[in-house]
Amino acid sequence: MEEILQSVELINNGEAVRIIDQTLLPNSLEYLTLDKAEDMFEAIHSLRVRGAPAIGIFAGYAAYVLARKIAADDFKSFRAELNKICDYLDSSRPTAVNLVHATARMKEAAKRGCESGGMENVLTGMEKECISIHNEDIAMCKAISEYGLSLVKDGDGILTHCNAGPLATSRYGTGLGTLFLGKERGYTFHAYCDETRPLLQGSRLTAYELNRAGIDVTLICDNMANTVMKQGRINACFVGADRIAANGDTANKIGTCGVAVLAKHYGIPFYVFAPSSTVDFSCACGNDIVIEQRSPDEIYRMFFSSPVAPEGIKCYNPAFDVTDASLITAIITEKGICRNPNSENLAALLRN
Amino acid sequence: MEEILQSVELINNGEAVRIIDQTLLPNSLEYLTLDKAEDMFEAIHSLRVRGAPAIGIFAGYAAYVLARKIAADDFKSFRAELNKICDYLDSSRPTAVNLVHATARMKEAAKRGCESGGMENVLTGMEKECISIHNEDIAMCKAISEYGLSLVKDGDGILTHCNAGPLATSRYGTGLGTLFLGKERGYTFHAYCDETRPLLQGSRLTAYELNRAGIDVTLICDNMANTVMKQGRINACFVGADRIAANGDTANKIGTCGVAVLAKHYGIPFYVFAPSSTVDFSCACGNDIVIEQRSPDEIYRMFFSSPVAPEGIKCYNPAFDVTDASLITAIITEKGICRNPNSENLAALLRN
Repeated sequence: MEEILQSVELINNGEAVRIIDQTLLPNSLEYLTLDKAEDMFEAIHSLRVRGAPAIGIFAGYAAYVLARKIAADDFKSFRAELNKICDYLDSSRPTAVNLVHATARMKEAAKRGCESGGMENVLTGMEKECISIHNEDIAMCKAISEYGLSLVKDGDGILTHCNAGPLATSRYGTGLGTLFLGKERGYTFHAYCDETRPLLQGSRLTAYELNRAGIDVTLICDNMANTVMKQGRINACFVGADRIAANGDTANKIGTCGVAVLAKHYGIPFYVFAPSSTVDFSCACGNDIVIEQRSPDEIYRMFFSSPVAPEGIKCYNPAFDVTDASLITAIITEKGICRNPNSENLAALLRN
Repeated sequence: MEEILQSVELINNGEAVRIIDQTLLPNSLEYLTLDKAEDMFEAIHSLRVRGAPAIGIFAGYAAYVLARKIAADDFKSFRAELNKICDYLDSSRPTAVNLVHATARMKEAAKRGCESGGMENVLTGMEKECISIHNEDIAMCKAISEYGLSLVKDGDGILTHCNAGPLATSRYGTGLGTLFLGKERGYTFHAYCDETRPLLQGSRLTAYELNRAGIDVTLICDNMANTVMKQGRINACFVGADRIAANGDTANKIGTCGVAVLAKHYGIPFYVFAPSSTVDFSCACGNDIVIEQRSPDEIYRMFFSSPVAPEGIKCYNPAFDVTDASLITAIITEKGICRNPNSENLAALLRN
């Protein structure tokens, strides 16, 4: 039962995509085999497949599976059909950049395939491309995890916040990759997972996938992070990133910055793990990052229980926060480790 | 509808005690009228009345109401019955010091009453005593709140953690008393309430009673405290205390110390409000305070929803934490304000 879960796979010789239905976790592990456009749209829209990289990988495979069914004699009509398919997939979650990026790559691959070898080369080109999207993500996660492993030692206690593991990406993941890779190499880590209110990605996903891989994991409420740090149980904090400004200020799930402040107080390294594509050089600093405000209901009601707060109470529910670069020990990307990040050294690392 | 709730009252000319059934909050405000020993026992045992001071006040009234029904011709047999009643009440929540303290005072008052004026003076003495227990608590809360009000100004944003309000005490409360008293004096405060996982006393009780009193309140998850501090919305943090060591180290609901670390990072005053009786001089420092560990189920299941974490996952669930005195701006008791608390100045203040 010790295994790293595969969130997205191409199966049946390219006739379908298989995903883990993440909406059923952690109570039930169920796989869905998808080969119809409507079901694929619904899977993204309803968050059955989630996590920016995982959505990109899924969209690549989805476009390929659907392209195989296009009945067209010439590339012009094939392309018209493919564009429709991709537009439809793109509209399933309009803010998901990886989705649009993946479908764009698939359209481009079809065009290149046709140009180099005519219609019979189109699907071959597309197949290679969607497998590449997946493999590139695996390689990126692996590189990040290797760098991460150089920062810790066997037996370390690691505090995690939110989820940046295999379910959201490919094998290994980003923020959690070091733990999975370390496990394979025989390291014993002790993971402490913040449950991550309001939506509990820490308890539902991180605790689930670490536990499943046989890594020692202890679940805590967010407000207990201080206690385990104070008790000396934590040697490093591992988080992912949604967007990193040019100066290293990092937007990530709400609560991340609080963890960084506590880590600084107790002298514990605070590490941000992310693909280099997460760095947005058009954003000078964290103040330029707009934070999504979500429904009060996520605080007011807990997973469809009866309300846990007085009716009509004002709730403030920012989905993310920004951690100042000054609180970040290092940002770890597939291109290397940026210590004490700032505009200069972050740009220098990513230029490579 | 702007009102401070009364958690415990003596009603019907001393024939019954009326309480708010706190287990139904915040979804329903219901009062219970109690005049039978079994119902009183159950009310404490099932946390229908909760909060150390409120339990003490309730126990005083309960002992009086039940004493009135004792059919005894002489004090010896009266006292035997009264002892049985008090032992029974005491056993409803064995660790509640205020409970035992209140019933001891009631037994002593009965004895004094008899000594000074015979049997007919016993109930009069007991009535005075239970009213005194209540009035002393009101006066103590009022004094704490007056001191608190001297530390803030109109328009301030106040972060609260857990619940130390009227529901847990008498009128005003301790940690929240400043907000209620300020409201009566025409101050406008903006309260931000940490929901306080795992048991959500912040959303269920604090947000409820502040809102009911017409105080502006915004509910946040615990991991959002950092964000509202960083945004400049918070001018002071208000918390209660379960036990204060001789050097000022303060045990309070889990998450309190984390709030104190954040407050220090952002330069925000962190205030602890508590009756002077909370200071335990037999405890030299926080390390001597044993922290209660509670059921993993409080984290694993959220209010009887389906599990939100993988089955059998390890959960670490300390009920309290200890905030180092060095992180506390001041401890506010009914005897005055102890700034930068340590063993010397805390003892000096309480000696008065």
